[in-house]
Amino acid sequence: MSSQFGQLFRISTWGESHGGGVGVVIDGCPPNIDLSEAEIQRDLDRRKPGQSEIVTPRHESDACRILSGVFQGKTLGSPISLMVMNQDARPEAYREMETTFRPSHADFTTQAKYGIRNWQGGGRASARETVGRVAAGAVAKKVLAALAPGLEILAYVKAIHAIEAAVDPATATFEQVESNIVRCPDPEAAPRMIELIKTLRSEGDSAGGVVECVVRGVPPGLGEPVIDKLEADLAKAMLSLPATKGFEIGSGFAGTRMTGSQHNDPFVLREGRVRTTTNHSGGIQGGISNGENIFFRVAFKPTPTITRAQPTVTVTGEPTELAARGRHDPCVLPRAIPIVEAMTALVLCDHALRQRGQCGRI
Amino acid sequence: MSSQFGQLFRISTWGESHGGGVGVVIDGCPPNIDLSEAEIQRDLDRRKPGQSEIVTPRHESDACRILSGVFQGKTLGSPISLMVMNQDARPEAYREMETTFRPSHADFTTQAKYGIRNWQGGGRASARETVGRVAAGAVAKKVLAALAPGLEILAYVKAIHAIEAAVDPATATFEQVESNIVRCPDPEAAPRMIELIKTLRSEGDSAGGVVECVVRGVPPGLGEPVIDKLEADLAKAMLSLPATKGFEIGSGFAGTRMTGSQHNDPFVLREGRVRTTTNHSGGIQGGISNGENIFFRVAFKPTPTITRAQPTVTVTGEPTELAARGRHDPCVLPRAIPIVEAMTALVLCDHALRQRGQCGRI
Amino acid sequence: MSSQFGQLFRISTWGESHGGGVGVVIDGCPPNIDLSEAEIQRDLDRRKPGQSEIVTPRHESDACRILSGVFQGKTLGSPISLMVMNQDARPEAYREMETTFRPSHADFTTQAKYGIRNWQGGGRASARETVGRVAAGAVAKKVLAALAPGLEILAYVKAIHAIEAAVDPATATFEQVESNIVRCPDPEAAPRMIELIKTLRSEGDSAGGVVECVVRGVPPGLGEPVIDKLEADLAKAMLSLPATKGFEIGSGFAGTRMTGSQHNDPFVLREGRVRTTTNHSGGIQGGISNGENIFFRVAFKPTPTITRAQPTVTVTGEPTELAARGRHDPCVLPRAIPIVEAMTALVLCDHALRQRGQCGRI
Amino acid sequence: MSSQFGQLFRISTWGESHGGGVGVVIDGCPPNIDLSEAEIQRDLDRRKPGQSEIVTPRHESDACRILSGVFQGKTLGSPISLMVMNQDARPEAYREMETTFRPSHADFTTQAKYGIRNWQGGGRASARETVGRVAAGAVAKKVLAALAPGLEILAYVKAIHAIEAAVDPATATFEQVESNIVRCPDPEAAPRMIELIKTLRSEGDSAGGVVECVVRGVPPGLGEPVIDKLEADLAKAMLSLPATKGFEIGSGFAGTRMTGSQHNDPFVLREGRVRTTTNHSGGIQGGISNGENIFFRVAFKPTPTITRAQPTVTVTGEPTELAARGRHDPCVLPRAIPIVEAMTALVLCDHALRQRGQCGRI
Repeated sequence: MSSQFGQLFRISTWGESHGGGVGVVIDGCPPNIDLSEAEIQRDLDRRKPGQSEIVTPRHESDACRILSGVFQGKTLGSPISLMVMNQDARPEAYREMETTFRPSHADFTTQAKYGIRNWQGGGRASARETVGRVAAGAVAKKVLAALAPGLEILAYVKAIHAIEAAVDPATATFEQVESNIVRCPDPEAAPRMIELIKTLRSEGDSAGGVVECVVRGVPPGLGEPVIDKLEADLAKAMLSLPATKGFEIGSGFAGTRMTGSQHNDPFVLREGRVRTTTNHSGGIQGGISNGENIFFRVAFKPTPTITRAQPTVTVTGEPTELAARGRHDPCVLPRAIPIVEAMTALVLCDHALRQRGQCGRI
Repeated sequence: MSSQFGQLFRISTWGESHGGGVGVVIDGCPPNIDLSEAEIQRDLDRRKPGQSEIVTPRHESDACRILSGVFQGKTLGSPISLMVMNQDARPEAYREMETTFRPSHADFTTQAKYGIRNWQGGGRASARETVGRVAAGAVAKKVLAALAPGLEILAYVKAIHAIEAAVDPATATFEQVESNIVRCPDPEAAPRMIELIKTLRSEGDSAGGVVECVVRGVPPGLGEPVIDKLEADLAKAMLSLPATKGFEIGSGFAGTRMTGSQHNDPFVLREGRVRTTTNHSGGIQGGISNGENIFFRVAFKPTPTITRAQPTVTVTGEPTELAARGRHDPCVLPRAIPIVEAMTALVLCDHALRQRGQCGRI
Repeated sequence: MSSQFGQLFRISTWGESHGGGVGVVIDGCPPNIDLSEAEIQRDLDRRKPGQSEIVTPRHESDACRILSGVFQGKTLGSPISLMVMNQDARPEAYREMETTFRPSHADFTTQAKYGIRNWQGGGRASARETVGRVAAGAVAKKVLAALAPGLEILAYVKAIHAIEAAVDPATATFEQVESNIVRCPDPEAAPRMIELIKTLRSEGDSAGGVVECVVRGVPPGLGEPVIDKLEADLAKAMLSLPATKGFEIGSGFAGTRMTGSQHNDPFVLREGRVRTTTNHSGGIQGGISNGENIFFRVAFKPTPTITRAQPTVTVTGEPTELAARGRHDPCVLPRAIPIVEAMTALVLCDHALRQRGQCGRI
Repeated sequence: MSSQFGQLFRISTWGESHGGGVGVVIDGCPPNIDLSEAEIQRDLDRRKPGQSEIVTPRHESDACRILSGVFQGKTLGSPISLMVMNQDARPEAYREMETTFRPSHADFTTQAKYGIRNWQGGGRASARETVGRVAAGAVAKKVLAALAPGLEILAYVKAIHAIEAAVDPATATFEQVESNIVRCPDPEAAPRMIELIKTLRSEGDSAGGVVECVVRGVPPGLGEPVIDKLEADLAKAMLSLPATKGFEIGSGFAGTRMTGSQHNDPFVLREGRVRTTTNHSGGIQGGISNGENIFFRVAFKPTPTITRAQPTVTVTGEPTELAARGRHDPCVLPRAIPIVEAMTALVLCDHALRQRGQCGRI
């Protein structure tokens, strides 16, 4: 479906950028999991606009309401409906979009597909849709905490434009990530990244970059051997996010320049468990987790919305120029961090339940 | 599910490397499409072992039988069952794998997941499973030829190890790709790639590389705006293939080092159609095709099976060494070309039918 | 999933009887269909409590809000989120249910399944869940009106307890059905049914009955030949409704007492179309509609909630007695009519889109 | 999809009556379950043609081959491909069907849907398709034996035409069912049923009837509370079988003539478990099993294929007469018994795995 993800832990997101609100329904959540609005809010606050000087100034509290599926602080096993009302929608600010296709946005393709579109703020193609994913991901994290204690998901900015951070996925911490507004745990690179984003914005331009995500404490055995390989579902999850252009796991594209003898991860026995001495595989072999850290990188293109004038056409095909006036992010990566984590949690939670269903244990 | 792909054009593959055979069932194929075993065989022959001096010498004719769903040369709309019998299975050659985990293979993870595995030739994790995908992809190509005439899918080797080919996705031809055994349309790079593969094999080692795929003549409007974005389904399709480590579309990871003003694709009107003057988007915007060429790259790691001795452990955790003796490919890319094309065809065919279902046209 | 229905036109319902509200998300709706809250409200009003003297007096306006997926009065093709807030929830009235299992309700089985339950008003098992289905069904009717003009769905009460109505499915009208509060188009039987329901209620008891539904103007070709037979999906739809115990189509159980020569429907050509002279098949042959009227019957058991004292056990297994005090329907059938119609519309709409996807026409 | 059933234990059947063969692929089977061809064959032999004097004389050994998914006698967790080759196909015997629509068969609707059909023996609409279901059901029974020991599925003929058997679902045995060729455990009714079938066949006619199925030893908690109610999935499973016209569970249609005080099943504590003293619910309450016996009835219409001449039309609309000449069953019920059991096993196995996935236990 257009807006569903997951097989056993299945989410359905809904909502347009400038409609009544955005939300998600989760079907298949295990019962008896502690869950509060505050726990969901924590991740939504990391995603919300207006949180720092390098993101969009749109003012949304993004306050989450649990409408169903939770009783006396615990999940019931029935669908969990989560909703955030839109507050600071300014549809009139997008009037130009009614008649003009923004370059490298979804305006033209949405029109081509459906023959109709909500031109107010990008409608469904707006990153505002990810509110539902982050809310559902927060629930998935709670389920994982119960099913696979010790499992930990951490995403961070690995690169902004040409500035690459030095980060060890094995040891980076949540506190390091949250210690600066660009969410990069490298204290040397982070201020340079922030500076670059400000400079580009002042020039009417924008930046892209790379997010890295690591999952530590994964039990072996999650994933499927053929189609629903764990890395395949992670790739789909990441490429389903707005503005993403690439995904690589473990050695990734660089690994194609190694030979087999260099790339293979030797097995050893350590503390009674089969382990590998290197981790070019990125924690997944043959589609199934091997117990090592899972780590992958996601490429985000520079924000297409820029205040510099750009050539484009109107909906009737007339050449014109467009300079963005709506509020927007000069770089989406700082706010993408909780979104990448949420999608990762959704993939792992779904596979954990599938593993329990088929094999009787996780 | 573990082995199903697609929503409306859904395939279910089955079979182990050294079991009775491998096959696929296609559910949801449109009726009244001309289909013959010969058309399917053409792609299977490009995938089959023993086709050249740089691939595995395993001898399989991979002759495909249509067991159902076709009547008097036309599809019925009912499930199409396709099967290839295994001929040259030599399970005894894999006896060592019963007791030893091959590094960077799925032996350990399969055992960890299921508590049992078919150790003969890798069982389900063997690339032999892709026979079913290539057969189904050949059917998908036939459906696409009827639904979207002019649509053309072409994959080729873009890089082997550090040797990168110069190829223009807009003009490369099937004949160029098939003109050499490494399936690289760059006549300068191809012989060097072949030489490198031979050298590495003689050293008991192996190579990886990058496959590029282009789809020309795509109608605008295919894909979904949120979860089932066209690039998300392509990413999943590619990362579900054995030995893949990365996927990037359009500008990909390199695009993260561009600014928005450099990266955006300006719209123009050309011959009455809305077109873009550049194509950093790779033919997809907001998850939906825009009518430009779709092109993407897939990273394949070096074959983990090498004849050089490697350290590993036995299934009981004892340290040991393993040097591969079974037949294998020193580099999987030449045979991966039809597989990448097949998965691409499956994604596009599924989305074309979905588009017709929801919007009434393609 | 627990709360999803449909393959291409897929609904996800959510909400407990006494939680914040109830609702539904529709994924896959075709674009450019006119849709207003008023059109949805019309069916919700036929389902809502308090509408007559023979249904539950719970006071709910059941006012429906469209939260997404509609723009300037037309569907966008994106998820449609519909919500009704609960108004007259009185959770405290159900305090007894916290400690006692109501006979022939879902209290015990819900507890056995999940180890937790929302005991306020039956939670998810309450018929209040069907608000989402009726709202989604109203949208499905709009889609069908665009895709299959002339298609008409009509349900009515066929029997209450032992009182059976005389109704001709070919000619019964909506006005006849809505002309009385029991929704039975037989003017002779209807008042007797109403009287019986009142009598049983006054005795602290309740009644069941049979709903019949007819679909006129169905195009031939809807349905699948094997698993997703049209009658199979209708049967599932009906048995997924609370309080249903049986489903029969066409000749049904009575048809088992006919011989083949009596039961077969002869084909004739009439006005250039292949028609049948009888319709024991009920409009479906081999899982696929044949263009004749589809008609089927659904058995509803007597309401389990009665004010007469009944023996049962507490959640700790102590024997006890229970006499219902909450508001409830002495007979669910009058309010079940729009629900049966809604589920029928959902099945037909889904199959119409599937037919268009696979075969290119409806 | 047209030919898939189940969410976690998913089957895909394929094959036409007179094509190369029929089969099924099972995806999602738990690993480490003992499985042999002989165990599958046992149920196939109860379904196969030619087994007695009151069924079709078509000669098929229906020998089942396991092509994948089983290794050294145990399931691997990977797809299980099962196949039966057709032996006694006589396509030429169906030549008349190329040009004439058989009354109350799927010939016309298949043509209307797809614009093409395999007219040899009914193609996909033939009951021969159920070979795959019975084979998959035999595997599901093995899984259930491991997951829910003590669970027992038993179907039998409850009525042929107007002859109704007296059977106690709580005590009927497999041996009683298999003691006669009509598969009715009532020793008084069985010979009369057999006689009636022979008489009708000699008159060029056919009979229908009712199959009853009981499941004993079901753990409480299987099923979903809303859409995928256990009885809804059973209803769909049964109505997806050829020739079925109705389904009722527990009190069924007769229960609509009871009052709530008569129909409710009082709870008591017996041997430390919550039980009911009556079972009008048929073992399912609110969509979820309550631990009592599940029992339901399925209506089968009289076989439409009869040797008596019947009026019909040709594919070009000319009036004509048709008298069947192909081999066929004068009554499908004796062979339907293992098919009803198979579909029941598939539903329960799927729900058992789903319950384990979501709630961590069965």
